[in-house]
Amino acid sequence: PDGMVKREDFDYVEEAVPEPGDGELLVQIQYISLDPAMRGWMNEGRSYVPPVGLGEVMRAGGVGRVVKSNHPEFAEGDHVTGIFGVQEYALSDGGGVFKVDTDLAPLPTFLGTLGMTGLTAYFGLLDVGEMKEGDTVVVSGAAGAVGMVAGQVAKIKGAGRVVGIAGGPEKCAFVVDELGFDACIDYKNDDIRGKLKEYCPDRVDVYFDNVGGDILDMVLLRLAHGARVVLCGAISQYNAAGGMKGPANYMMLLVNRARMQGFLVFDYASRYGQAAREMGGWLKEGKLKTREEVEHGLDAFPDALLKLFRGENTGKLVLAVNGD
Amino acid sequence: PDGMVKREDFDYVEEAVPEPGDGELLVQIQYISLDPAMRGWMNEGRSYVPPVGLGEVMRAGGVGRVVKSNHPEFAEGDHVTGIFGVQEYALSDGGGVFKVDTDLAPLPTFLGTLGMTGLTAYFGLLDVGEMKEGDTVVVSGAAGAVGMVAGQVAKIKGAGRVVGIAGGPEKCAFVVDELGFDACIDYKNDDIRGKLKEYCPDRVDVYFDNVGGDILDMVLLRLAHGARVVLCGAISQYNAAGGMKGPANYMMLLVNRARMQGFLVFDYASRYGQAAREMGGWLKEGKLKTREEVEHGLDAFPDALLKLFRGENTGKLVLAVNGD
Repeated sequence: PDGMVKREDFDYVEEAVPEPGDGELLVQIQYISLDPAMRGWMNEGRSYVPPVGLGEVMRAGGVGRVVKSNHPEFAEGDHVTGIFGVQEYALSDGGGVFKVDTDLAPLPTFLGTLGMTGLTAYFGLLDVGEMKEGDTVVVSGAAGAVGMVAGQVAKIKGAGRVVGIAGGPEKCAFVVDELGFDACIDYKNDDIRGKLKEYCPDRVDVYFDNVGGDILDMVLLRLAHGARVVLCGAISQYNAAGGMKGPANYMMLLVNRARMQGFLVFDYASRYGQAAREMGGWLKEGKLKTREEVEHGLDAFPDALLKLFRGENTGKLVLAVNGD
Repeated sequence: PDGMVKREDFDYVEEAVPEPGDGELLVQIQYISLDPAMRGWMNEGRSYVPPVGLGEVMRAGGVGRVVKSNHPEFAEGDHVTGIFGVQEYALSDGGGVFKVDTDLAPLPTFLGTLGMTGLTAYFGLLDVGEMKEGDTVVVSGAAGAVGMVAGQVAKIKGAGRVVGIAGGPEKCAFVVDELGFDACIDYKNDDIRGKLKEYCPDRVDVYFDNVGGDILDMVLLRLAHGARVVLCGAISQYNAAGGMKGPANYMMLLVNRARMQGFLVFDYASRYGQAAREMGGWLKEGKLKTREEVEHGLDAFPDALLKLFRGENTGKLVLAVNGD
């Protein structure tokens, strides 16, 4: 696609459900994850994963039920998560597939707060952002799947002040009243620079950026000495046909001896278990809140993706398939 | 000034040479340092030092001779370096003033390779860039005061490959033949992206950036995993009347789990002595080469500054005053 994705960029194709071979399992997918990163996977060129080719099944995370298994580690009836694609059934050799404990949370949560987006927030904030107790933390996309977890983990880990940035009064109310952020800036209606000054009197130690664009530029003007800008995403720029806009104020990194750092959650795979257990515990204790928004049916995929890019969802957006 | 500085932005004023009071010394300045950072000091607004106000003596580093002293640590005849301003004589209370050893190198070298620019290169490369043995290091502004030292220190410290970027065949010849870089890209005549690919087959581990703009964007496309971009300056952007251009490819930091980090040499003040001794040793052994270009006379200051921003100097540009 060039610029914003369109419905016509996708084809819906029917095929017979395949039979698992030796060492394979067949998963009936129940929920498909919708992620801003999907837009990047549709672009040609070098990135951290190969682009999705023309005619291939669109890449996506999912969660579902094992319906047939010739794999020693998975049994019929197990619930599993993995990169299953935008489809109703997936064959897998078990690589990158994990069982999920449905007693801990409903299935969609394993695509969000207890899945890749939650882990992204956790490692981005604590490892890349090196958040310390007392820090002022700003999170953009604060009502989104990653942002809502990043801000809550910051509070749990002792941040001095956690300020969200989100679009519209309803999202801001969700961020403050339900998630417990100290404040939220409505980028559609507020004077962002003025509010950053008001809500961050000691400037910003960690900025967890999910959006890029003008908001990134404004937060750069408010960095504290030694600040860490965590580059998690740039959803405002992914569909820009004229190309990405770079942060014009990047030299504030020099003035403030600050850094801007990118990361990919996959690099922390060896610590997923520990982090998921810690976050699962917070979820059980009620310290960590989660929200998922569910769209229905495989043919709703293109519209759901557009909804994500228009910022119309609150929390993690997933697609229920197979009538679940 | 708005955009590029002009001659008319400066006034030349004559006053009587002042008398040092108690605890003060009077320095007859012999060389004045010309630095890209000077342009930033002329802008209003928050930065790491207050802006130079209208009517104030332009801030500048300098080196000269103590001609009168009522300060216990400095004697008449000592050679000293400090922030003395663009003037012929400076009064000082000794703060930030250091004696220099004229046996080690000629005076202008203490404004460059053995002064702030050399220290900037040293700490930027080794501390901020965390250069490791075997790394591929790219340095822009490679024939400039900071760049020439950064690349040589990289070689001395065991970089696998050091590639400069400079403007024009003469500067590139200086960088490779005299300074010993492995290669140099002539940004005025070469296909920069193609040459980066050719000269950096294993991609770029450390990029020491003095220029910003399009060159920064092209190096971002060539980063290795875990790369460090050292933000030292953005000389291509300082006089841009339309505002700074941000690096459009900054999300390559995410794809490559890389970071971009700013710094100020002043934060390393406690280690100046150790670094200066190490670099002085390399200079004596002939491992570290230096070059200074000397302009003459106080009234040549505005033109010398423009020369710097036009990239017409090779090595450290200084202004000789008081007929030295």
